[in-house]
Amino acid sequence: MAIDPHTNSIETTVNKSTVTLESPLNLACGVVLAKYELAFETYGTLNHDRSNSILICHALSGDQHAAGLDKNGKAGWWDHYIGPGKPIDTNHFFVVCPNNIGSCFGSTGPKTTNLDTGKPWGANFPSLEVSDWVESQKQLMDYLKIDCWSAVIGGSLGGMQAMHWAVAHPQKLKHAVVIAAALKLSAQNIAFNEIARRAIQSDINFKQGNFLEHQTSPTKGLALARMIGHLTYLSDDALGQKFGRLVRSGDLDSAEKELVQFEVSSYLNYQGDKFATRFDANSYILITKMLDYFDLAQHYEDNPVEAFKQAQCKFLVVAFSSDWRFSPPCSEEITDAIVSADKDVAYLRIESDQGHDAFLLPNEHYEKGLGQYLQRVAQAISGASL
Amino acid sequence: MAIDPHTNSIETTVNKSTVTLESPLNLACGVVLAKYELAFETYGTLNHDRSNSILICHALSGDQHAAGLDKNGKAGWWDHYIGPGKPIDTNHFFVVCPNNIGSCFGSTGPKTTNLDTGKPWGANFPSLEVSDWVESQKQLMDYLKIDCWSAVIGGSLGGMQAMHWAVAHPQKLKHAVVIAAALKLSAQNIAFNEIARRAIQSDINFKQGNFLEHQTSPTKGLALARMIGHLTYLSDDALGQKFGRLVRSGDLDSAEKELVQFEVSSYLNYQGDKFATRFDANSYILITKMLDYFDLAQHYEDNPVEAFKQAQCKFLVVAFSSDWRFSPPCSEEITDAIVSADKDVAYLRIESDQGHDAFLLPNEHYEKGLGQYLQRVAQAISGASL
Repeated sequence: MAIDPHTNSIETTVNKSTVTLESPLNLACGVVLAKYELAFETYGTLNHDRSNSILICHALSGDQHAAGLDKNGKAGWWDHYIGPGKPIDTNHFFVVCPNNIGSCFGSTGPKTTNLDTGKPWGANFPSLEVSDWVESQKQLMDYLKIDCWSAVIGGSLGGMQAMHWAVAHPQKLKHAVVIAAALKLSAQNIAFNEIARRAIQSDINFKQGNFLEHQTSPTKGLALARMIGHLTYLSDDALGQKFGRLVRSGDLDSAEKELVQFEVSSYLNYQGDKFATRFDANSYILITKMLDYFDLAQHYEDNPVEAFKQAQCKFLVVAFSSDWRFSPPCSEEITDAIVSADKDVAYLRIESDQGHDAFLLPNEHYEKGLGQYLQRVAQAISGASL
Repeated sequence: MAIDPHTNSIETTVNKSTVTLESPLNLACGVVLAKYELAFETYGTLNHDRSNSILICHALSGDQHAAGLDKNGKAGWWDHYIGPGKPIDTNHFFVVCPNNIGSCFGSTGPKTTNLDTGKPWGANFPSLEVSDWVESQKQLMDYLKIDCWSAVIGGSLGGMQAMHWAVAHPQKLKHAVVIAAALKLSAQNIAFNEIARRAIQSDINFKQGNFLEHQTSPTKGLALARMIGHLTYLSDDALGQKFGRLVRSGDLDSAEKELVQFEVSSYLNYQGDKFATRFDANSYILITKMLDYFDLAQHYEDNPVEAFKQAQCKFLVVAFSSDWRFSPPCSEEITDAIVSADKDVAYLRIESDQGHDAFLLPNEHYEKGLGQYLQRVAQAISGASL
C-alpha cells in the first residue's frame, strides 16, 4: 500500500507553542491546579481526519524540544528518531511533545509563580505522580481536538507514561511504545535517586527549596545529583571503551599523582556542571520522586496483569542489553504481564553497549525495529483514510 | 598430620599496639616520612620459629580492629573469618592487622599533627600509593622480627596490597590471598570515586581540607560519599530482597506522597551519617585516589604477566558472583595473568547475592574454601616445625 506523505521536507519543521489550559487539573495528591501552562512542540502535519498523531513523553530531564533545531541551532533530544524519513516519520505522523508540568522548560512547575502567593512555587509545588502527567497530556489532547493517538511513545519515565496511558485511557491510543522502562523501580534505583536528592538538599544554597527567592541556586548539589544519574545511565563497557584509564592532566607515571585527572572524571564533572545551569533543583527532586512512586499495578491489587487487562491498544516493548537501571528483565516483566492479559505485544531486545542511554542514541537495529513497527501503524492509518 | 594448636580459646584475644617506626619511609610521591606511627592489632601467638604469621590488609574504610571485641564490645570487621577455629585460625596463626597510614584510626594520617607545622596535616598529607602501604607494612614486619609472612590476605583494596606484596617482596611471603580485587580500576569505578570526592569537596565545611583547623567537619559531604560507595558495594538483588519497595514512613496508597520514605533510603541515610562521624574526609579522598592510581602492571610495561613473574608465592584468588564493583572477570584477569606467569594459583568463584560486600559477610562456601586453603598452609608450617 502506497503511503501518501503530507510533506517531503528533509529538515524537521519545529512548531513551538505554549497553551494555558483552564480546565482544572485534579492532581493525585489532592491539590487542584485551576489553570496551568503547557509548552509543547509539534512536528509534521495533522491529517484530515486527525488520526495520525503521536504523543512523545519525555523522561526525567527531557523537555519539549524533541526534534529539529531550535533557534540556537540545537537539535532536539530525540532528533535522530523523529523527522522526515526517520523511525517516527513526520512525513506520515503529526508528532506532539509537551514539556510536562513540574519540569522547568516553560510548563508550570516549581520555577513558575504561584498566583496565590505571588512567589515562585519552589519546594511547595505539589507532589506529582505519572498519572498527573498523563491527565495534563489528555487535556492537551482535547485542546488539540485529537480523539485518539495513533501511538504514545516514551523511554524510561516516558515509557511509564505510555503504560499509564494504555491502562487509564484505553480508548485514547492505538499503540503504546514502552522503551527501557519498568513496572516500578527497584530498591537500587530508589537508592540512587535518594542520594541524588540528598546531594541537592545538602547544598547550602538549596535553602529548603526557596533558593529562587534568595537569588541563589544549589548548582553544586544539582551537578552532583546529575553526575550520579549520568554515571548510572552508562554501561561499564561503554565507559571503558570511551575513557578507559585515559588521563586528562598530569602523568600516572610521575610521582606527583595529585595532578592526575582522569578523562572520565573530567567528562562527568563537565556534564554535571552543564546540567546544573539548565535544570531546576526542585524539579529534579520532584521528578525523581515520581519515578520512585510509580507502580503501574498499585491500584490493581499489585497485579500488573490486572492493570494491562484494561488496555485496548497494541504494545511494542523495547529493552537494551547493557541497561542496568531498567534492564531487559524489567521489560520482560512488562511483556509477560501484557501477554498474560491477552493483549497484543511485540518485544525487541536490542544489543547495545550504551547502557540506559541507548534509548536516545543511534543504533541500527533499534531504528529499524521502531521504524518498521511505526510504518505498519502509518499504513493502517493510510488505509483507513482512503 | 596433627596440628598442635598454640591456644584453644573460644574467644579471640585482641592485642592492641601502636609503634613509632623511625626508619624513614620514602613515599612514591617523593616525600620522606622521617618517622610515623602504625596502630595495629594481633591475634594468636607467634610460634617459636616465627613462621606462622599472617598479614591482614584492610580496604578503603577498614581499620586495625579486624577480629575479637574492642573495649566497647564491638566485633572486628572480619571477626567472622579470624579467630580460634575460624577460616583464618588463630589456633594456628599469628595474625597482624595494621591501620594503614593515611587512614584515621591511630596511624599517621591527615588527622595527625604535622610536626613541621604544628598543625594537622589535613589536605596536605602526602599523596599515597599502594606501594607505600606495603613498605610501611614491611617496616612493621621488620619491627616484629618476622622474616616471611605465611600469608598476606586482603579483600578489595586489601587484595591490591596482597598482589603488590607478591610482586615487590617475593621472598617475604609464602601465600597471597587476593579477594574481590582487580589489577586496576575501570572507568566506572574511578567515576564513582570521583563523585564521592566531589561530594566531600562541595561541602561548605570542607574548607579546602583544613576543616580541623576551623573546628568543623564536612559530615554532609562525607555521608553522601559513603552512601554512593555503600550502594555500589551491594547488589541489586540483595537490596531487593532486603528492602524491595518497603516503606518506612508514610503510605504509598495515600495522596500525601511527600511523607513517604522508603526503607532503603532510610537505611542508606543512616549508614552515611554513621560513617561520617567515624571517618576522616581527607582520608577518604586520599584513599579513594590510591584505588584510582593502582595499576599492578604500571612498572612492567603494562603487562600483568611480567609483574607476576616476579612473584615466588602461591596465590588464592576469590571472586563473588554478584560483585559489580570488582566483578568475577576482574579476578579471572588476575588468575589468568598468574597462570601465564607460570605461578601457582587457585581460583574460587563464590555464588553470592551480596555484591562486593560479600567478602566481609558469612558465606559457607567462602568460609570453607578459605579455611581449607589456610589449613593446608598451617599443616605445611606445622610439618616444617617438627
